Amino acid sequence: MMEVVLELVRTAIRSADPHFSVKRSLNFDGRTLKVLDREFNVKGRIHILAIGKASCRMARAVFETIPGELVGDALIVTKHGYAMDCDGIEAKVIEAGHPIPDENSLLAGKLGLELAKKVGRDDILLTLISGGGSALFVYPAEGISLEDLIRTNELLLRSGATIREINTVRKHLSKVKGGRLAKAVRGTVISLIVSDVVGDDLSSIASGITSPDPTTYRDAYEVPVRRGIWDRVPESVRRVIERGMRGEIEETPKELDNVHNFIIAGNSKACEAVARKAGELDFNSAVMTTTLEGEAKEVALAVGSIIEEVAKRDRPLKKPAVLVFGGEWTVTVGDAEGLGGPNQEFALSIARKIAGLNVTVVAFDTDGTDGPTDVAGGIVDGETLKRLKEAGIDVEEALSDHDSYHALERVGALLKTGPTGTNVNSMVIAVVGDRGDAL
Amino acid sequence: MMEVVLELVRTAIRSADPHFSVKRSLNFDGRTLKVLDREFNVKGRIHILAIGKASCRMARAVFETIPGELVGDALIVTKHGYAMDCDGIEAKVIEAGHPIPDENSLLAGKLGLELAKKVGRDDILLTLISGGGSALFVYPAEGISLEDLIRTNELLLRSGATIREINTVRKHLSKVKGGRLAKAVRGTVISLIVSDVVGDDLSSIASGITSPDPTTYRDAYEVPVRRGIWDRVPESVRRVIERGMRGEIEETPKELDNVHNFIIAGNSKACEAVARKAGELDFNSAVMTTTLEGEAKEVALAVGSIIEEVAKRDRPLKKPAVLVFGGEWTVTVGDAEGLGGPNQEFALSIARKIAGLNVTVVAFDTDGTDGPTDVAGGIVDGETLKRLKEAGIDVEEALSDHDSYHALERVGALLKTGPTGTNVNSMVIAVVGDRGDAL
Repeated sequence: MMEVVLELVRTAIRSADPHFSVKRSLNFDGRTLKVLDREFNVKGRIHILAIGKASCRMARAVFETIPGELVGDALIVTKHGYAMDCDGIEAKVIEAGHPIPDENSLLAGKLGLELAKKVGRDDILLTLISGGGSALFVYPAEGISLEDLIRTNELLLRSGATIREINTVRKHLSKVKGGRLAKAVRGTVISLIVSDVVGDDLSSIASGITSPDPTTYRDAYEVPVRRGIWDRVPESVRRVIERGMRGEIEETPKELDNVHNFIIAGNSKACEAVARKAGELDFNSAVMTTTLEGEAKEVALAVGSIIEEVAKRDRPLKKPAVLVFGGEWTVTVGDAEGLGGPNQEFALSIARKIAGLNVTVVAFDTDGTDGPTDVAGGIVDGETLKRLKEAGIDVEEALSDHDSYHALERVGALLKTGPTGTNVNSMVIAVVGDRGDAL
Repeated sequence: MMEVVLELVRTAIRSADPHFSVKRSLNFDGRTLKVLDREFNVKGRIHILAIGKASCRMARAVFETIPGELVGDALIVTKHGYAMDCDGIEAKVIEAGHPIPDENSLLAGKLGLELAKKVGRDDILLTLISGGGSALFVYPAEGISLEDLIRTNELLLRSGATIREINTVRKHLSKVKGGRLAKAVRGTVISLIVSDVVGDDLSSIASGITSPDPTTYRDAYEVPVRRGIWDRVPESVRRVIERGMRGEIEETPKELDNVHNFIIAGNSKACEAVARKAGELDFNSAVMTTTLEGEAKEVALAVGSIIEEVAKRDRPLKKPAVLVFGGEWTVTVGDAEGLGGPNQEFALSIARKIAGLNVTVVAFDTDGTDGPTDVAGGIVDGETLKRLKEAGIDVEEALSDHDSYHALERVGALLKTGPTGTNVNSMVIAVVGDRGDAL
């Protein structure tokens, strides 16, 4: 069963690959740019603005697809150390700070907005967006310093605000986020997006540089108030939000007619690719969810109970079956000093639930790095719990200590992929029964 | 949508009803006793031994089905205060202690074993088993007192032993459990079982009075050793286990040719009944699992993510759809002083995940009592989160405080059924989309 599982893991990672995703989605023929099933007539030039950790890989695929004479300006913004992927590409490349923005992030925002304003009525701005964009591409509203922005972000994170709430604030403190960059473009904006946001909400990915923003200055005010940090937010930030509420600063755009957003890779697409591949391999298959979340150890029990139902009662799917669960689960570490990550902890926990069953489960982070470890996640099967016990490992203790890495390592249940160069969150693939079962 | 949800809740409770379950499963025609699709030729008499909280209701249905002249001895063992349900039934009724066994539990065990031994070769012993049997029906091995048994049970519970491990020990300290009662019967044993054990493992329900026991004295020894309590277990208990390991006491039976066990009600059957009913009401429907477990708040997020996938992407089921999840989830209360139960906490937690969706979710305990409250659980929909916020309730705080009862009460989201007289664990029913969606 192991070779099937590994083939499906490879399928997921290939589906999420930024270079491959652009190649798959983008076609150029004569004067027509085809993106998935939409066609765009190219009258002027195509300018390129790539923002995110996968910028170079995405840009390279664009340069391989579009004739050089049509390409106008090209600005590539990526993380420090990632520019080498841009070798040989004719573009201005900026390396900036991530996860904390730096002066280069400011420069990127400024040059990006200049580029956007330069796009002619007949031109296309092709934006290539991937994870990390929020930090890499920054242009604060008038009067707000980079330090004020970083401080506000820290306060929000520590207050327990959700990522959606944080984005609501960010978008209203920026001259480029919340669709403002796209609004500055006179021509057409085509945005190819590798989504690292669970649920693929366009207005959240890279703080929605090319997406209309449903939230308002009032929402941006209510978040820090609700989280009890309004008084500690830098004065410059409070002033911008208050001025926005009084209508003295323009709201983020609520619609953008000239913009076409395409999610070309993401958790959902990767899950679908795995389910399709499993079908080709003669398994019944289904994507069960693409928004799985919660504490890894507990969520694993819930997912395990569905796998158990398939194994024992052939429902909701008949064996042999492949079930795919996408999303992003978490580990609340507390004072524990063990080594592991959400996917390793998921794998260790679910080993308890599938013990004795003809089931193999892999849980992995598509970026190849699960938590602060060198592995992507864990692969466990019906025998893993027995092997753990034989190795003298107390599974409950390992879970309490959040020491999943060492437990799984002892029984050869770690999954190593190396860095994959992409990130579409995490995935669980369960293979239930052998293909022979169907005969 | 509410009327559909309530109809499905009624379907679940009706399916699990002990009286209805016996009536549905048992038929008598001439000299043939039919149980589900198995037929038994009745040559002698039918003796009745009912053990569990639902004993009276099950026995009443038997008396309504089998002609009085065929009924031999009848012994009914139930919980203190439950005997009034036996009014008008011609049987010896014993009320005994639950969850802690008492002297009457001992009497019940003794009389039960006497009855078993009295059953003739041509006779049938019809045992009716429901939840609570482990405590209500007790006959300790030679030399073990009731106090020793209670003390051992307490030690095991506190040691973190699983219910399966506790049952392994219990069965080896008893003259009636682990299939020993059935082994004492010369005739045929037909057992009708209302299962309150997740996964319906026969050898666990009421400590497997009529089920072969796969575990051994060595297993019974290893449990307290592994849990670090062997030295604190009463000496009489240690002596029995040691003698058993040396072969001086007979092992529990590993097979029982004369015994026919039928699970006539349980979580799985109730889930199936709900899915079937939903199909009749023109919903696509599926039982997703019957072994759901874990921390209610987190498990709700996992279940919610599957419901979200159906609502937003029509998979793994197409709307309109009903998804059914059975099992038993828990709440780790710690120092919190709120009021609630696992199903109310599940409902409150999942309200966050289904906010804004055309979804209604009910989570309830089939016995009608969720935790230390007077309600069965909670019903929430896509508007509940908004209503909670409008009512000034901080949902995250209510979850941390385990105060789901008061939060749900404020927005009219509690489900009250009253005591249902049965227990087949807990269930979640999700109705996604309106029936009109399919048109």
